[in-house]
Amino acid sequence: MKTITILGATGSVGGSTLDLVEREPERFKVLALTANCDADKLAKAAIRTNAKRAVVADESCLDDLRAALAGTGIEAGGGRAALLEAAAMGADWTMAAIVGCAGLEPVMAAVAEGGTVVLANKEPLVSAGDVVLAAAARHGATLLPADSEHNAIFQCFDSARVERVRRIILTASGGPFRDWPTEQMRAVTVEQAVAHPNWSMGAKISVDSATMMNKGLELIEAARLFPVAHERIEIILHRQSVIHSMVEYVDGSVLAQLGPPDMRTPIAHCLAWPDRMETPMAPLDLVAIGRLDFEAPDPVRFPALALARQAVEAGGARPAILNAANEVAVAAFLARRVGFLEIAAIVADTLERYDPPAPETLDAVLQVDGEARRLAGERVKDCLV
Amino acid sequence: MKTITILGATGSVGGSTLDLVEREPERFKVLALTANCDADKLAKAAIRTNAKRAVVADESCLDDLRAALAGTGIEAGGGRAALLEAAAMGADWTMAAIVGCAGLEPVMAAVAEGGTVVLANKEPLVSAGDVVLAAAARHGATLLPADSEHNAIFQCFDSARVERVRRIILTASGGPFRDWPTEQMRAVTVEQAVAHPNWSMGAKISVDSATMMNKGLELIEAARLFPVAHERIEIILHRQSVIHSMVEYVDGSVLAQLGPPDMRTPIAHCLAWPDRMETPMAPLDLVAIGRLDFEAPDPVRFPALALARQAVEAGGARPAILNAANEVAVAAFLARRVGFLEIAAIVADTLERYDPPAPETLDAVLQVDGEARRLAGERVKDCLV
Repeated sequence: MKTITILGATGSVGGSTLDLVEREPERFKVLALTANCDADKLAKAAIRTNAKRAVVADESCLDDLRAALAGTGIEAGGGRAALLEAAAMGADWTMAAIVGCAGLEPVMAAVAEGGTVVLANKEPLVSAGDVVLAAAARHGATLLPADSEHNAIFQCFDSARVERVRRIILTASGGPFRDWPTEQMRAVTVEQAVAHPNWSMGAKISVDSATMMNKGLELIEAARLFPVAHERIEIILHRQSVIHSMVEYVDGSVLAQLGPPDMRTPIAHCLAWPDRMETPMAPLDLVAIGRLDFEAPDPVRFPALALARQAVEAGGARPAILNAANEVAVAAFLARRVGFLEIAAIVADTLERYDPPAPETLDAVLQVDGEARRLAGERVKDCLV
Repeated sequence: MKTITILGATGSVGGSTLDLVEREPERFKVLALTANCDADKLAKAAIRTNAKRAVVADESCLDDLRAALAGTGIEAGGGRAALLEAAAMGADWTMAAIVGCAGLEPVMAAVAEGGTVVLANKEPLVSAGDVVLAAAARHGATLLPADSEHNAIFQCFDSARVERVRRIILTASGGPFRDWPTEQMRAVTVEQAVAHPNWSMGAKISVDSATMMNKGLELIEAARLFPVAHERIEIILHRQSVIHSMVEYVDGSVLAQLGPPDMRTPIAHCLAWPDRMETPMAPLDLVAIGRLDFEAPDPVRFPALALARQAVEAGGARPAILNAANEVAVAAFLARRVGFLEIAAIVADTLERYDPPAPETLDAVLQVDGEARRLAGERVKDCLV
């Protein structure tokens, strides 16, 4: 019996995780479920899974949660401290799916318990990579990647023989503008940018996919998760997103993981690892898919790739600044305050203007994150759309 | 230090194996090298690798071998008994690359030593599968597959969790006639049939690829090597032969092995397993390859696939008969005595006319093989080209 906590249980990743956990009640026992404020959805999930505790991070939603859980025996909690307590209940397996820097402290709390912590958001490895990895090593926690690319690499990566790995090949769909000339990209609308060709995703990550900053952030994550220098992590355009990533070995063998475009496959892999569990999706049908294409990404039209590579090369605070500035720039784009090509320009500009020492604590990371956001925000104001 | 014996050291697979063994003399020590009759090539390889013994199966070539090895201190042997003795020297690792049924006895001799035996020819698993697998189990020998498809499956297959495997997906180039209509296939010439699009191979195996009997034989091998019923082994056309095969798990993950079209990658995998070793080929360049295609094979134009599936389903002597009849039919085609479409017809006819009990010893296998050849030969005589 594996005890499970889901931080961010009402979001898309949280929902997929619940779907899988609920399929095998004899295998998984839910300790805690948390959400930001969706008390109704959270309470329903807690009741269905007979969770021990349910927590809303936003304390103003606690009354609703209490009402929804009345008489169930499930403990209700609210606020930041209650969230951190829920993360620290010592679950064997914790899904860390809280969006943004708000998820960092709960991740650290879960890592301190020494169990398996599954990372579904970018901040723990991009912004706070050194801090989170050091804590995991200190507490003997196991970090597993839930996103499809890193999970694919994890499935293909022989950790016992890292010296036999020649390259990691990270695949990228290239987003909706992979075939567009620069001039056309300049005029991209919000509606065009959020329409991802392969995956159904939120607006922020869809824009990241369109700028390919998403792949840049994944490059940084891959370099943190796997003991392979970033120079040996290659990004390749693969528009169908069927091969989720690959690992090449010194004997010429390339191992790849393929799968349907459904997060439940990588989440199930993390849930059952080192075993596997069934998922309900239709099997991959390569005959129906017909063909898989591969191209080199264009570094000129997608400057985010080089920015990310420079950030991981320099290390220290650079990845956190890249991530924070990108969030501000994408939010400004979604608010129609800056143009599509300005996103990378704002990130580059923020990286140029701000070069603090490497943050060694979570507080220091959050300070870098805040200052980078402030600087990027200034830059947004200067933009003319 | 791993001790190595290569049975069939002067052929293509033997040469690739030597190339790899010679790259890491501190890792591999050659015990015995054998050939049919090419004394000069064999002696040179034995001298280069400082082998303990060199053996020609054809005793009439022994004088040449002795002369070529004079003064080197390398033992020279000749004839069937010397070949079996060489196979039984207790090497840690034996490459079994002797073509045809002549290789069966040496494989059994190597298996009886309990080491690792790498199979590069089809007969040990197709014709004598039950006998060879039983002997390997009895003597604690490890059988590893050197051909690219089964080696790919082996690299992707989690033997510790076979119940988590949903399907094996065996890829097939489809050969040179994959896009030809039946009428055109009827008139196929020997020259057209031996021109394989992706791999440089001998005439027999090129014709097997053109009829897809090669894939049928590989289906039988896969069903013997991996604990997966043949119904869960799917054959898929993949004309570029870049993905060498795949394994699908219950969580929806499909693991694939890709590689350059060079036998040294799978051989190196077997040589170094469970470690890996470097090979000298250029890395796989998916951008240069550009695209990978997938189609369903056509069971009407390629009846060999159904014949093989029926043979593995029925088991017993059927696979041995299929293989023997196919060898006779392909030889007749190469001798321009029968047409291309007659190959599968001769195999089907032989399977219909001959249904002996399951052979339980190597002698019984050889008897079935001989009788199937005789019957197929009779059928060849009836053919009009």
